[in-house]
Amino acid sequence: MNAEKVINLGEACIEEALKIVAEQGIEQLSLRDIARRLGVSHQAPYKHYANREHLLAEIVKRCFADFSNHLDSRPESCHPMEDLGNLGHAYLTYALTKPLQYSLMFGSSLPDPGKYPEMMKQARHAFSILKDAITRLDDKKNISEIEINALFVWSTMHGMAGILQNHVAGQLNLSVDLKTVAIPKALDRIRIALEAQIANLA
Amino acid sequence: MNAEKVINLGEACIEEALKIVAEQGIEQLSLRDIARRLGVSHQAPYKHYANREHLLAEIVKRCFADFSNHLDSRPESCHPMEDLGNLGHAYLTYALTKPLQYSLMFGSSLPDPGKYPEMMKQARHAFSILKDAITRLDDKKNISEIEINALFVWSTMHGMAGILQNHVAGQLNLSVDLKTVAIPKALDRIRIALEAQIANLA
Repeated sequence: MNAEKVINLGEACIEEALKIVAEQGIEQLSLRDIARRLGVSHQAPYKHYANREHLLAEIVKRCFADFSNHLDSRPESCHPMEDLGNLGHAYLTYALTKPLQYSLMFGSSLPDPGKYPEMMKQARHAFSILKDAITRLDDKKNISEIEINALFVWSTMHGMAGILQNHVAGQLNLSVDLKTVAIPKALDRIRIALEAQIANLA
Repeated sequence: MNAEKVINLGEACIEEALKIVAEQGIEQLSLRDIARRLGVSHQAPYKHYANREHLLAEIVKRCFADFSNHLDSRPESCHPMEDLGNLGHAYLTYALTKPLQYSLMFGSSLPDPGKYPEMMKQARHAFSILKDAITRLDDKKNISEIEINALFVWSTMHGMAGILQNHVAGQLNLSVDLKTVAIPKALDRIRIALEAQIANLA
């Protein structure tokens, strides 16, 4: 196998892994199955990934990098609160347009983060985008307060993403539209909470 | 097969289905596999469930009923805001102690809600517990405002549950503890947002 083919096999494994996860769930992912589907020897993927966890960590790392790029490409705004709103919209757009990548980052069957520093570096970078946006709201706050606000905002965004993806929520016979009313209003409540908090503690 | 055995097989299918979902993911659930694992003919489960979706809908229905019972057994309080806090804690406790049941209700691979009215009845009942608690905060609000507030609170709770279950969040090198500090503080921010909202619109 020449160098180009070897590089391509590494990439092909990632593409095939994403297909398997989408079709059968993350539990069914195995390097052996990837090899079978790609029509290569069952040893071949091991030249690129020592095991299933290594492959998964590489995939999740790339998801976080892609996610960060997406968040960074939100419309610019010199108003910190408006910028946070833009970040919220960018977050939800990613979750809804790339649900597979989203669940790979934020699902619960991830590779052990302690073992994959590069993956965690990308994860922390994504979180820092949110922390930076929160810091710009009020740079007099200390790091704990910024983190607490970031986790509050993240919780709400993560929860909204899940609720929008969930089939049950659409069938609750709500009088308000989930996407066009409830979500913007929830973003509004985040703003109210953060503004009230800034006003009290400034 | 006598009547008792038939009833037990229906229940045994549910127990075995939960094990399969826990071990292999929901995508791998099949009535054929359940029959094989229970050592009965592969036709036998069909006497209880017309297909895989029917079984899943029965399971999800029971999860919602169990979830509602759990929420209803929260400590009593005559202070509406304290009661909402108790509800929040009960919600998170359920998500963390019964992650399988939680993901069956709020994951995205559910049976089509439109086809299973009994399942949706239980789901709507669970949501009504939250709506009732929100209504007690300010009964002058109209139904849209109550639903919007309920969806905001649910989003944050659902997001927190996901973040607590997610392995990445624990490795973000936070200066605050997620469980003992960030979660109570996020609940606090929900309270601030709701109180500010009530004050403006009362």
